[in-house]
Amino acid sequence: MLSIQRLDLADAGLMIEGAAAHAREIGVPMCIAVTDESGNLIAFERMDGGKVTSITVAQDKAFTAAAARKATHEYNQACTPGNLVFGIHTALGGRLSVVGGGLPVLVEGAVVGGIGISSGTPQQDMACAQAGIEHWRRHQG
Amino acid sequence: MLSIQRLDLADAGLMIEGAAAHAREIGVPMCIAVTDESGNLIAFERMDGGKVTSITVAQDKAFTAAAARKATHEYNQACTPGNLVFGIHTALGGRLSVVGGGLPVLVEGAVVGGIGISSGTPQQDMACAQAGIEHWRRHQG
Amino acid sequence: MLSIQRLDLADAGLMIEGAAAHAREIGVPMCIAVTDESGNLIAFERMDGGKVTSITVAQDKAFTAAAARKATHEYNQACTPGNLVFGIHTALGGRLSVVGGGLPVLVEGAVVGGIGISSGTPQQDMACAQAGIEHWRRHQG
Amino acid sequence: MLSIQRLDLADAGLMIEGAAAHAREIGVPMCIAVTDESGNLIAFERMDGGKVTSITVAQDKAFTAAAARKATHEYNQACTPGNLVFGIHTALGGRLSVVGGGLPVLVEGAVVGGIGISSGTPQQDMACAQAGIEHWRRHQG
Repeated sequence: MLSIQRLDLADAGLMIEGAAAHAREIGVPMCIAVTDESGNLIAFERMDGGKVTSITVAQDKAFTAAAARKATHEYNQACTPGNLVFGIHTALGGRLSVVGGGLPVLVEGAVVGGIGISSGTPQQDMACAQAGIEHWRRHQG
Repeated sequence: MLSIQRLDLADAGLMIEGAAAHAREIGVPMCIAVTDESGNLIAFERMDGGKVTSITVAQDKAFTAAAARKATHEYNQACTPGNLVFGIHTALGGRLSVVGGGLPVLVEGAVVGGIGISSGTPQQDMACAQAGIEHWRRHQG
Repeated sequence: MLSIQRLDLADAGLMIEGAAAHAREIGVPMCIAVTDESGNLIAFERMDGGKVTSITVAQDKAFTAAAARKATHEYNQACTPGNLVFGIHTALGGRLSVVGGGLPVLVEGAVVGGIGISSGTPQQDMACAQAGIEHWRRHQG
Repeated sequence: MLSIQRLDLADAGLMIEGAAAHAREIGVPMCIAVTDESGNLIAFERMDGGKVTSITVAQDKAFTAAAARKATHEYNQACTPGNLVFGIHTALGGRLSVVGGGLPVLVEGAVVGGIGISSGTPQQDMACAQAGIEHWRRHQG
């Protein structure tokens, strides 16, 4: 038997709160998804004005970051033609996302969940994901 | 050009709040999804203990209720062998849900969104969906 | 609650009329799709001789342009290996199209729909999409 | 944060051993799948002679039993036309299985995984799933 730690709904709420606060600061309404360590969705919010396509993309980024235990922008850097990782972006019917904006959430070196952001540029998405994690770290019980 | 009214994120938050309160009263942790009038997700919460399969089922119920403008339990009643509606439950790759627990949200006769609940019995899911809508009606601005 | 403007069927008909007129001028029978602002199809026409694969591609271009609020050729320019957007072309099961020929339709800065064209070269598709929007602008009530 | 218990690979190996032993006794080569508590596959074996279609069906049964925390034959009993659960069998693209042969695995009342069997009659599949769980209970550390 394995013992696993994973985010709960309160953790997810804090991450969404932090990511949304940064999104408002930069003036980009975002789709924000938080998954557990297996990649299954815990909570999602589409800020008013978030993109419809980003509903799925944000979830897929969070899924990928958690389930593959890797930031999606790291996959992106490796996913170039000629590199043996290339093609991973079509795996799982395209659900494995290599677009920047998905970050794994770690506690003592173990992945406990993932956060995925979409609607801005990848850099904006990444900054909001990071802000969500940092807000959670400051406020968790 | 058409003018459409749809739920915003604050509306969705109120519905989730009301549905979750009822879920706690009956002691069943639920997956709760709220979509806009086109069936696109606005917000989602998996209460701690909600089922993994219900992540998708709740979203599909909300999608169906909003996009088909019909409660999923009404589709269920019509979806019996020999009735010409039978088979609708496999439409859209099974995304069209006929399982009780999805309700359209109406304002002055027009559908503005949908709410879908999953993890309990259909009757429990339906009661939480109704509680979500009623909580929203009492508290909207 | 949000108030949204979206194309109606008469708008979509005008766009198809304009796109088809340009298609006849250049001698390329096209598939022409018009969606609302959420990316859901309003009208579609396959001109006699339009390609079967383009039935889906045209719809995906229109969906992407509307739901992501971005021309598909702009996604194409950003979707190069090493760029953090790379991989977006496989999102949503490949339904997010980065092939030129999808344009968002704007009214006073807000996206009210999308048009997608397929069967010619991307340049031909883009020209027909633009012609559809311009015809609509000249003739809308 | 939540703490979760889930099966490990040694547990899954014991379940497959027990299920396969029963399958040999009744002379039916089976496909045997074991998932963790989130429904993700831990181990799979197709005994020589197991059916190709059962590769997927066994996995879907194990997934459903774990992720929905319910034996698939219980879903089957409820999934009759006119019952509000009807239609659940097409959810998740049909991946939610209501065919007998999937059992959740519980430890102290909590689901820690699922086992799914396919290639025989549902009764044979159910008996092998049960044999797998019992073998594991007898032999786990």
